[in-house]
Amino acid sequence: MAKMGMAIRLKPEMVQTYKQLHAQPWPEMDAALKAAHIRDYSIFLKEPENILFGVWVYVGDDFEGDMKRLGDLDVTRRWLALTDACQTPFDTAAPGEWWSFLPCVYHLD
Amino acid sequence: MAKMGMAIRLKPEMVQTYKQLHAQPWPEMDAALKAAHIRDYSIFLKEPENILFGVWVYVGDDFEGDMKRLGDLDVTRRWLALTDACQTPFDTAAPGEWWSFLPCVYHLD
Repeated sequence: MAKMGMAIRLKPEMVQTYKQLHAQPWPEMDAALKAAHIRDYSIFLKEPENILFGVWVYVGDDFEGDMKRLGDLDVTRRWLALTDACQTPFDTAAPGEWWSFLPCVYHLD
Repeated sequence: MAKMGMAIRLKPEMVQTYKQLHAQPWPEMDAALKAAHIRDYSIFLKEPENILFGVWVYVGDDFEGDMKRLGDLDVTRRWLALTDACQTPFDTAAPGEWWSFLPCVYHLD
């Protein structure tokens, strides 16, 4: 079991759209995340800097495999087509990086 | 039970100090957090922007009271004297605001 975190920016003009999408998440997208062994997944938003912070617990034993299978699903592609349009990587992201994974510097159970 | 998140910036010259402090947290500080009904508390770091994201679950029923009691402890004052020196609020923080509390825009159990 691993607690993981990531961050990305929202385009200022897409903040409301992003909030609305996540206020009514698709049940089939939630089910796909659960099937990919994602649990206790929250996304926080820092305004007005428009930074998203996602944190979840991965309960499987093949994170890369689960993420590949999740990403290949039709529902995921349709969902990300909407949410990717709201986001923009940090200027410091590596080529091809979208969400930036964050190291955990402290944990208390 | 409430999942809560917050963010603040680190001074670039204090990033290493902050990491070192949290790599060897004080057992009495951890115990004080637990006594204040804080659980599953993680702090993530976005470099090189030097933004801290803290996330935890509050399992009590008087958050303000618990935070007041926690803040009044000698161990908390000594710990914050070290960590506050590493941090700087966002330029957009309200007067007197240190960590900025973040709304949760999505949650999956």
